Formats: sequence, structure tokens, C-alpha cells
Amino acid sequence: MNGMVMNRITLLAFVGIIGIALLSCGEPKQPASNNAANVFDKGDKITNNNFKGDVWLKNLVVADSSNPNAVGSVTFSPGARTNWHSHPAGQIILAIDGVGYYQEKGSPKKIIKKGEAIKCPPNIAHWHGASADSPFVQVAITGREKGETVWLEPVSDDEYNH
Amino acid sequence: MNGMVMNRITLLAFVGIIGIALLSCGEPKQPASNNAANVFDKGDKITNNNFKGDVWLKNLVVADSSNPNAVGSVTFSPGARTNWHSHPAGQIILAIDGVGYYQEKGSPKKIIKKGEAIKCPPNIAHWHGASADSPFVQVAITGREKGETVWLEPVSDDEYNH
Repeated sequence: MNGMVMNRITLLAFVGIIGIALLSCGEPKQPASNNAANVFDKGDKITNNNFKGDVWLKNLVVADSSNPNAVGSVTFSPGARTNWHSHPAGQIILAIDGVGYYQEKGSPKKIIKKGEAIKCPPNIAHWHGASADSPFVQVAITGREKGETVWLEPVSDDEYNH
Repeated sequence: MNGMVMNRITLLAFVGIIGIALLSCGEPKQPASNNAANVFDKGDKITNNNFKGDVWLKNLVVADSSNPNAVGSVTFSPGARTNWHSHPAGQIILAIDGVGYYQEKGSPKKIIKKGEAIKCPPNIAHWHGASADSPFVQVAITGREKGETVWLEPVSDDEYNH
């Protein structure tokens, strides 16, 4: 009888322990990657053909007569990328989260990571996006004083993977 | 006797539940605030007299002939702030983490929070910094094409607290 009671005690305690452990820690801790992505709102999904894959844009600053720069936060899902394009006044990319790719025409693809900054020179064709395995969040600072972005051809899978 | 056994079962289960709940969730989750502050390196402590309190600067982009913008990440400890100053080509502030203050001369102080952006117009005296109770991390985008920042008088405690 005592043995059965102890078994019941043990079983109940065990079930209680497991149940509460699951309940209290059931929500997985978000990886740092996802937390940092929340610095800025994700914004709206981009629906034009200048991008491939799932990409979101949150406009943060609009250029005006006293400020030539447009600033936006762009979130690329893994594998998503811009088409080739160039900016008449260049662009600055700040990597806010994740791992991305950046390539200028004629140069090797670079890997860019959270915390890094890249200057795209004026009128140099380039593309950027998420790496194959990780989302990528960037802030783009784009001078509008010399005109709008010039959009070019899509980045092929060969170019993306090379 | 059955009553005592049930009490022991209940007590043991209860102790087990509480113990495991404490153990498995003992490490406090870092507030989002601390994670996001690590997007950029904190950089070096600013030692000039244009700031009050503990402030760190990480230069991310240096202006050059093809790119007029300097970009830096600035970390203010609670209560720390710039002096009053103005920028000949204006400035954009992106709030990366924490809670800060921003004030233009003659206007009320504004509270700025993680994820928000502010445009400081050219030649308007203003200051910014952390709120009294929270650190503040900002990215500053400063056009250098019309000259350097004009530094003015310190922000008094009265102005800071008002």
C-alpha cells in the first residue's frame, strides 16, 4: 500500500513537473535575429517586379526640399533579393539583422551581417538581398537629389548562388 | 491516513511544480532593449565637451566625394545628451533602441522611441539624448555637403527636465 502511494506521489509530482515546465517555457525564446528585426516595423510587402521573393518595406523618411535622403527599412526573406539596379546619388546600406548578400557588377558577391555598413557608389549596378539561409533586414539611405533608382534585369539564380 | 497521504501528494507535486518552474525559467529573458542595442558596436566613448554624460560613438560611414552623408551609431546612457547644435545640411535620427529626447529651439521636448525616425531641418538649433530613465541608441545620418556641425551651449538641467 505504501509502495503504491509512493508511486502515485512520484507519478503526480512527475506529471506536474513536466506539465508546468512545458507550460511556463512553452513559448520558445525568439532568437536574437528575430528580436533585432523588430527595431523598425516590417511595413508592407513589396508587390512590384523589381524584387524576387518575399520582401517588405517600411518607409522611415521621405526626401524633401531640405533633405535629399529617403530612408527605409527593408526585410528580405531567405533567398529574396532586389533586381540589379543603380542609384544616381549612391546608397548606404546598414545591416540591421540577419545575413545578406551584396554584389556590384563585375565584383564578387559579399556577405553582409548585422551591424555592418556598405556604401554603393553612384551609378554602379548592384543588387542586395538575404542570404539563402537567413532573413536579412537592412536600412537603405538613398540620396534622391540626382534622380530615382534605375532598375535593371533580375538577378539569376546562377548569379545569386555564385 | 488517506487524507495525510493526499496532503503529501499535493505538497510534493506543488513543491515540484514551483521548483521546476523557477529552475527552468530562472534566467530572466533579456529585455528587447538590451538585445537591440547590439545591432551596432558601441564604439568609443566621446571625450569632447559637446556632450554631457556618458556617450559612445561608432562611425559607420564616412562622407566622401561621392557620398555626402556621415553615418554613426550613438549610445547615450540615461540622462546623457548633446549640447545644443545645428547642422548646415540637416540630420536624420533613427531611434534604434531605448527612449530618447529631441528638442528644437522654441518647441517642446519630444520623446522618441525605438523604431522612430526624426528629421532635423538644416540650421535649426536642437539637442537630443537619452531620457532620464533609459539609455538611448540612435543612428545619425548627417549631410556634410554644406559644412560641419555648429556646436552651441550645453543643455541645462532645466531645459532637459522641462
